[in-house]
Amino acid sequence: MEQQIQDIKNLSSGHICMGGSHYLNAYILPEILAQFSKKNSGIELELVEHSAATLSAMLSAHELDLTFSCNEEFMEDFEKYPAFTDYILLAVQEDQEINKAMEKFALTPEDISNGRHLLETCPSVSLEQFREMEYILLSEGNNLHERSMRMFHEAGYEPDVIMENAQLVTAYHLTEHFPAATFVSDRLVRNSQARLKYYKLNYECAEREFYILLPKQNYIPVAVKAFIDYFRENI
Amino acid sequence: MEQQIQDIKNLSSGHICMGGSHYLNAYILPEILAQFSKKNSGIELELVEHSAATLSAMLSAHELDLTFSCNEEFMEDFEKYPAFTDYILLAVQEDQEINKAMEKFALTPEDISNGRHLLETCPSVSLEQFREMEYILLSEGNNLHERSMRMFHEAGYEPDVIMENAQLVTAYHLTEHFPAATFVSDRLVRNSQARLKYYKLNYECAEREFYILLPKQNYIPVAVKAFIDYFRENI
Repeated sequence: MEQQIQDIKNLSSGHICMGGSHYLNAYILPEILAQFSKKNSGIELELVEHSAATLSAMLSAHELDLTFSCNEEFMEDFEKYPAFTDYILLAVQEDQEINKAMEKFALTPEDISNGRHLLETCPSVSLEQFREMEYILLSEGNNLHERSMRMFHEAGYEPDVIMENAQLVTAYHLTEHFPAATFVSDRLVRNSQARLKYYKLNYECAEREFYILLPKQNYIPVAVKAFIDYFRENI
Repeated sequence: MEQQIQDIKNLSSGHICMGGSHYLNAYILPEILAQFSKKNSGIELELVEHSAATLSAMLSAHELDLTFSCNEEFMEDFEKYPAFTDYILLAVQEDQEINKAMEKFALTPEDISNGRHLLETCPSVSLEQFREMEYILLSEGNNLHERSMRMFHEAGYEPDVIMENAQLVTAYHLTEHFPAATFVSDRLVRNSQARLKYYKLNYECAEREFYILLPKQNYIPVAVKAFIDYFRENI
């Protein structure tokens, strides 16, 4: 009750500590945080950045007010609110021979900005067609690692992994320079000038549903509730 | 001795675990790691990404073979090799009024790619001229936090900080959307299309000397030694 009275004042004085990967913090959140902050200038925002595995542990320990996840198993222990969807694409360094054979399937950043990859008529690829590639993948503990492995399993082979990394955006930058392929989010690719070709993937798990996750608690602070509502209306 | 005999074979079979911030891993290392990996295809590279504070602790605990730092105090406990220099610029969101008054000082990403900011003739700014701005800064434990504070101290005021973050690149992306200023590296800005104006800073500490740091040890593994030599010749 005291907490609740306190909170009535809190839209002019609250604090939200949220955690995300670099992808979340640098590509999904900046615009919406800036808009939210303009409307709620009394609410202090704190942004923590770690690997998915560390963020999970921090949320369990109540060291964060909220985080974002698309890992369904992980969500069971938390309160969840649907947040946004993204689509995983295969990205191949543009110098690679395979891009010639697959030319008809390749998408440009413009195509992706325009949502061409979301149309049913847009042709998609199977990883079987990229069996000879080397891969840069996310490391275990990141949900995209498990999704990638599920796709390779369906395609019937073990990928040749030359490097693993904990951040999607780092894997993306590395792949510009290595003779390799990786998995990226469509929301990262928009307006990119990276030296990569992009392919729509023919797998259900390439679509990711992100949720805002909160620790299980009896009472959600007013500032956190206001942020969740704002995020869901404006993303 | 056994370790050394083992190592003679190791250029065809070594492993290097290196740690960096997102800035290092995504903007400084990809090209040089790709070239090194091409020449030394037997050496496995592992790339770990954390805040500067966490990386320091990991190096002390010998959980990394090497990391990068420009924090002179921190270096005393480690073996160090000069690696590269960068220059901190002030970045201001392009919609901000102050950019009009400071128009003559503003640099474009092209100017920075061409090294114009390195010329003595390039005019620089003092933070006094940006006293009314709000700032997004790196959090404590990151050397750039201390450097920023030294500059504000010289300019004679406490900055109005609206958000702190542990990663330079995240602060950079946030500042595209917030009505704010931040500090960025010249090596990040090259070829950027971010909605920001850049200013050369009139402070000695805006120049950062990065070193490769190794745990103190009697013997440096051959693969690590080969990487250090390659990095220093090719950066």
